[in-house]
Amino acid sequence: MTVENSGVHEDPLAADFLATRQYSTTLCATLEIDDFGLQAMPDVSPPKWHLAHTTWFFETFLLKPFVTGYREFHSQFEYLFNSYYNGVGRQYPRPQRGLLSRPTVNEVLAYRHHVDTAMLKLLLMPNHPDRASILQRCTLGLHHEQQHQELLCTDIKYSFFHNPLYPAFGAAQGSPISPSPQALHYVTVEGASATIGYQGAAFHFDNEVPAHLYLQVGFRFANRLITNAEYMEFIQDGGYDNPLLWLADGWIWRQSCDAAHPCYWVQQDGAWFEYTLYGLSPLNPWLPVSHVNYYEADAYARWCDKRLASEQEWELACGQFIATPETRAGALHPQAAGNKAMIQQMFGELWQWTRSSYAAYPGYRAAAGAIGEYNGKFMCNQMVLRGSSCVTPPGHARPTYRNFFYPRDHWQFSGIRLADDG
Amino acid sequence: MTVENSGVHEDPLAADFLATRQYSTTLCATLEIDDFGLQAMPDVSPPKWHLAHTTWFFETFLLKPFVTGYREFHSQFEYLFNSYYNGVGRQYPRPQRGLLSRPTVNEVLAYRHHVDTAMLKLLLMPNHPDRASILQRCTLGLHHEQQHQELLCTDIKYSFFHNPLYPAFGAAQGSPISPSPQALHYVTVEGASATIGYQGAAFHFDNEVPAHLYLQVGFRFANRLITNAEYMEFIQDGGYDNPLLWLADGWIWRQSCDAAHPCYWVQQDGAWFEYTLYGLSPLNPWLPVSHVNYYEADAYARWCDKRLASEQEWELACGQFIATPETRAGALHPQAAGNKAMIQQMFGELWQWTRSSYAAYPGYRAAAGAIGEYNGKFMCNQMVLRGSSCVTPPGHARPTYRNFFYPRDHWQFSGIRLADDG
Amino acid sequence: MTVENSGVHEDPLAADFLATRQYSTTLCATLEIDDFGLQAMPDVSPPKWHLAHTTWFFETFLLKPFVTGYREFHSQFEYLFNSYYNGVGRQYPRPQRGLLSRPTVNEVLAYRHHVDTAMLKLLLMPNHPDRASILQRCTLGLHHEQQHQELLCTDIKYSFFHNPLYPAFGAAQGSPISPSPQALHYVTVEGASATIGYQGAAFHFDNEVPAHLYLQVGFRFANRLITNAEYMEFIQDGGYDNPLLWLADGWIWRQSCDAAHPCYWVQQDGAWFEYTLYGLSPLNPWLPVSHVNYYEADAYARWCDKRLASEQEWELACGQFIATPETRAGALHPQAAGNKAMIQQMFGELWQWTRSSYAAYPGYRAAAGAIGEYNGKFMCNQMVLRGSSCVTPPGHARPTYRNFFYPRDHWQFSGIRLADDG
Amino acid sequence: MTVENSGVHEDPLAADFLATRQYSTTLCATLEIDDFGLQAMPDVSPPKWHLAHTTWFFETFLLKPFVTGYREFHSQFEYLFNSYYNGVGRQYPRPQRGLLSRPTVNEVLAYRHHVDTAMLKLLLMPNHPDRASILQRCTLGLHHEQQHQELLCTDIKYSFFHNPLYPAFGAAQGSPISPSPQALHYVTVEGASATIGYQGAAFHFDNEVPAHLYLQVGFRFANRLITNAEYMEFIQDGGYDNPLLWLADGWIWRQSCDAAHPCYWVQQDGAWFEYTLYGLSPLNPWLPVSHVNYYEADAYARWCDKRLASEQEWELACGQFIATPETRAGALHPQAAGNKAMIQQMFGELWQWTRSSYAAYPGYRAAAGAIGEYNGKFMCNQMVLRGSSCVTPPGHARPTYRNFFYPRDHWQFSGIRLADDG
Repeated sequence: MTVENSGVHEDPLAADFLATRQYSTTLCATLEIDDFGLQAMPDVSPPKWHLAHTTWFFETFLLKPFVTGYREFHSQFEYLFNSYYNGVGRQYPRPQRGLLSRPTVNEVLAYRHHVDTAMLKLLLMPNHPDRASILQRCTLGLHHEQQHQELLCTDIKYSFFHNPLYPAFGAAQGSPISPSPQALHYVTVEGASATIGYQGAAFHFDNEVPAHLYLQVGFRFANRLITNAEYMEFIQDGGYDNPLLWLADGWIWRQSCDAAHPCYWVQQDGAWFEYTLYGLSPLNPWLPVSHVNYYEADAYARWCDKRLASEQEWELACGQFIATPETRAGALHPQAAGNKAMIQQMFGELWQWTRSSYAAYPGYRAAAGAIGEYNGKFMCNQMVLRGSSCVTPPGHARPTYRNFFYPRDHWQFSGIRLADDG
Repeated sequence: MTVENSGVHEDPLAADFLATRQYSTTLCATLEIDDFGLQAMPDVSPPKWHLAHTTWFFETFLLKPFVTGYREFHSQFEYLFNSYYNGVGRQYPRPQRGLLSRPTVNEVLAYRHHVDTAMLKLLLMPNHPDRASILQRCTLGLHHEQQHQELLCTDIKYSFFHNPLYPAFGAAQGSPISPSPQALHYVTVEGASATIGYQGAAFHFDNEVPAHLYLQVGFRFANRLITNAEYMEFIQDGGYDNPLLWLADGWIWRQSCDAAHPCYWVQQDGAWFEYTLYGLSPLNPWLPVSHVNYYEADAYARWCDKRLASEQEWELACGQFIATPETRAGALHPQAAGNKAMIQQMFGELWQWTRSSYAAYPGYRAAAGAIGEYNGKFMCNQMVLRGSSCVTPPGHARPTYRNFFYPRDHWQFSGIRLADDG
Repeated sequence: MTVENSGVHEDPLAADFLATRQYSTTLCATLEIDDFGLQAMPDVSPPKWHLAHTTWFFETFLLKPFVTGYREFHSQFEYLFNSYYNGVGRQYPRPQRGLLSRPTVNEVLAYRHHVDTAMLKLLLMPNHPDRASILQRCTLGLHHEQQHQELLCTDIKYSFFHNPLYPAFGAAQGSPISPSPQALHYVTVEGASATIGYQGAAFHFDNEVPAHLYLQVGFRFANRLITNAEYMEFIQDGGYDNPLLWLADGWIWRQSCDAAHPCYWVQQDGAWFEYTLYGLSPLNPWLPVSHVNYYEADAYARWCDKRLASEQEWELACGQFIATPETRAGALHPQAAGNKAMIQQMFGELWQWTRSSYAAYPGYRAAAGAIGEYNGKFMCNQMVLRGSSCVTPPGHARPTYRNFFYPRDHWQFSGIRLADDG
Repeated sequence: MTVENSGVHEDPLAADFLATRQYSTTLCATLEIDDFGLQAMPDVSPPKWHLAHTTWFFETFLLKPFVTGYREFHSQFEYLFNSYYNGVGRQYPRPQRGLLSRPTVNEVLAYRHHVDTAMLKLLLMPNHPDRASILQRCTLGLHHEQQHQELLCTDIKYSFFHNPLYPAFGAAQGSPISPSPQALHYVTVEGASATIGYQGAAFHFDNEVPAHLYLQVGFRFANRLITNAEYMEFIQDGGYDNPLLWLADGWIWRQSCDAAHPCYWVQQDGAWFEYTLYGLSPLNPWLPVSHVNYYEADAYARWCDKRLASEQEWELACGQFIATPETRAGALHPQAAGNKAMIQQMFGELWQWTRSSYAAYPGYRAAAGAIGEYNGKFMCNQMVLRGSSCVTPPGHARPTYRNFFYPRDHWQFSGIRLADDG
């Protein structure tokens, strides 16, 4: 069976499967084989591991339960490429993923091919007795793969940054001369009893539901993200040296690592540069400040006498002003705000830290079994980010989407959206 | 001026001041001088440090700003006994508080006397131009001292526990033979749009306001706390060895320290004991399980197919069923639930972990200056506990009171209150 | 039985026992009860622990084996006050010794009294069948106690230093105005085949024997210790910032703790002070530089284009020029070199780092049983220091004495003696 | 210029240069590109780094100082591939060497080619004014490269071991059925005043001189290395659980990592395997026990009531019984002792821990400048190993050769040679 004569293109999910799977390897086009094992800290995974783990997901949750006589590609991959599903079994230690030089990149590509072939066969069995579960889990697997496509970008950025040669992941496309962005101002959003969470029949993660009524008082919401120039003022005003601007834990973080600027800023001979996926570039004052953690975002807000939005505020503002998530295909760095929209940069530039800790919506229940570990067990110690980033794959964003990271994390494409009381 | 002829007893705040201050030293009556410097981990402070720091609070926030010509007791105490107020200045490193053998206990008592004398004089100046601020800050200082009275008990318990001789802090008063507690059941609370937070004119912390409307759906609320016997079933069912019951961070905690039971449980020759402030005693199955952290409370709830209450649910249930906080003067350990009330053990036994992360209420603003550091800067990474404990000083509890600790913390008198969806 | 009528004064060992035991408590005369539990790092022990452990030594190695029906003072002290004798049993964790507020100081003094009484009885039994072992072990116990007398001083100095009040352990005796010391020069010692190690019948530790022939080539040996003024030149020449002067591990140590001067030097408003057991004093340029670790001593020597002496060189120079160890009773800080002797400051001021790693002499065998753990198991990773210090008890020093510490250790009274090839 | 017509083969040093350089890349023949960046702990370096660093050595110490107009291959390689020469400049952090995916393997090979070409030109300039220094440094560079050839093997073994797939570095050559080795016995060596250290005109490291007289008493020396079977008895006798057998620091190590067997032993379903560079194989009882650290070797010796040899004893025994170092080309694992020689396995199987700490010989002076950092600065905290191992390149071993590692290190090919007093 070849893809041509397979009926794949007539089947939307199969076509989607093929396209999404292919996008993962396309993303890696500029990598050398030498790069595929990089893991600069326990939180990031090597590109090869992302390629294998996303494949493991389909093999584990679809092929093994639903394909009679399925022959697993390798008996130890269940262990090697399980991320955190205790319900499936033990896991190879996360901090050591970079030590898996075997399987090689080529073997992982063969693993992908093996699983893709079996998956396409499965997807093209309309009368499979478990058809409904198959479609549901396959869709989840594709959204899972999209999450890893973004992580692949954020992780390789972090790992490459440790190399003083500052390798480029993408070829810079001569970014357009951006005019200075619209002045920062605040849009008033009226208080309301509004519905928060996903309503509808399309795909969404379990943490976006149940949709529920929420009593929101009026608030004011920034029209765009904070820029590098604005953040530089905070630095120059001694923001990193004034404990009164920081959360207690934020100040501990700042002291412990001697933080004095966003993690990818580099000072050379007095001039500021920023490491981007295109390599090292002079710091562009109009671009949104990126790769700040929650502590930095919160300290900046306090310095401004503002605050971060709650996730409910973000979702309500989004519902009021933004129809659908914007996307910029192939972008690897955020761009400057323009002058058009009332509220800009909600999607496709940087995830936006909210002041909301990541918690279950009222009535939330995790699914039974290993798949129930997907989201629920992380509902502690993390903060919600809303929107999407320049490296979020097209089609992956939603107004109700809840991303979440620890307050100290700064290797994601994360920025600052301010808000204020009404 | 002696207390007798001073007019102290006619002035309610002065009388309150005297009584509260005295209670701190009374609490230490059973301690040997050898005990006053104990600090078994960075999070706990030595008894002597609590006695000095609470005194520092009055000296720093009242005597220095409001008493002309006030002579500070010792020029370095501002540094030594500042806890975390960056607005006041640098602080002696918290993990080293146990190294301050000087000032001695007797010198700290002299420090207390020096400050108390000056404070009483100040309180008895009805025409002081800053009278309003003085009263407000003094009241805050007394509630602050009460918080440290509780911490003194929790901290010495933790430090004593590291001594294999298991010293007693209090003499056991022959606890009454408690009958088996009421069976666990759940009381239904109807959904409502209700006010959360403190309303009124009496003292409250800034984190309890602004009071605000909150949309609560109906829920079910446990009539009492979980007992040692019930928690033992969780242990015997392998609760500590099943990762599917735990939050991701909880499982990391459990693995990192090999946790297998609540922190003060001790197994000797097959029998279970519990270290209490009265010394080591056989584990009493009817008593509420105490000194569990959030991860343990959450895992236990998941094992029961229940959940913890949110802080709003707790406050609403409290408002509906409990008139005023109960107290048990002089108690050093929780007692068993009885058979009377519809909802028991809301106050005076154990703080109750809620599923709510500690965050600002809508419209919250921290006060300006160093006093603004009291609560606001801790609104990250911590969980709210509600109620009060057996070592909470009388008069300190409130239905709107928000205590907060990190999910990993288990040295507080903390227990488990279950809830469920309505 | 009282000491007066006991015959103690007629029995030299009993008299020695009494005097040595008393010296330990006399040493603590200036301490407050608050001070007895201080332990500022795992390597140091609280004064109270020293008092108890030295008592434990006699109880464990003499009273229990040799006194029929001996009643131990407390059943758990065997565990609490065992330092490192695995042959005796498990040990309370060393880093937590400061947490043993109980037994109190008074209880430890009672423990000492209990053991001393039983010991004196035992010593006064001339016909005890194990008389020889008793005398031998008692003598060992007294030298052991002397070692802890020195440690008590070095340890309390380290712990007190963490208190910004800089408590004094002894009252300064108005140190005499010392003239500038003799110029540094080197005395030539001819090569020889000489005996190294203890020869004789008096007490010595097992690590000082077997005495053995050693082939030593000629060398040159510094007439005195390096002074603070000389060491300051090294600092001012950038000694702490030049990796070429340091051993690889020394540089790692220096980087890891940002070392820039000896551990008790303090800079205040541009002036240098030194913390001593008399309190903080202006740095005296003529005094020998003290409390340097091996890495610092070695780096200083390299900076001078000299080297440290080997322990054999030290012992040979000592044999050639020094008759008996000098002592200065009651001193708590080293004094300046004078102008008299050919080679000064060999004893009674500072221990002198040698370039020799601590190893067994040819033919060395540790004793059988727990007492064999005294010295032998430490013969790895440590360096030998020779001489003695101002806080070494009178009568404890010997030309063949081998002290040993890790290269990174700088809390001992340790200084720099230079040497050079002949 | 090609190698054929270059005169390389007529020039012995140039021919040696070419052969040694080629051997490094030949060693890597079985590696996948994916493997070249592996670094499983800070102490080991990735294969690619070894290839680059050895090249850096020639570029830094020969091409830059001695070739007019030499164009360095890449301006940042001086920083990236400097190991520890502070005299040359700062170094890329050692624990992060595995993060250097760039330069790629191919770029490093190009770097090697660039440097080799320039080196050959330099070597073929007989009239270069610095000819003597060039020859001397080139020879040093080749011995340096040989050391890294061995490290490349030990390091990749350690890194591969972290992969549960247990990759093979070499194809097993069907090892011959080895008969049981000669019984362990001890050969008597008479005491003597003997010369220790290198005497002669051929290459040697600076730590092997000055040769000097040493007074050695008689001793007994084991005829062969300890086998796996013999070491297994130690384990089965509870050797890892008896603190009395261990040095104090050894016991701390054993406790800290829960050691219970040599580092490459693996127990699967009750059977013992050993990870070798040929992959996982059943544990062969006749082979010498390998990859033990000093603490294990010392504990084993104490269990036998024997001891390790000193380095002087080893050298004297070697001088007396062994003519020239044996070699086994291409071996990747030690083989069993045979029945022939009086003293076997001195070379070519496993390095042998001695009881001697690594220290300067009398009169030793490190060379001036960066090259002086080669050996001297490591003379602290490490122990000497003598002999050579199965992965030591042919021609690299010498009876006076002093290898050195930290007592805790067990990733080298290190084994146990016992000795005893005479």
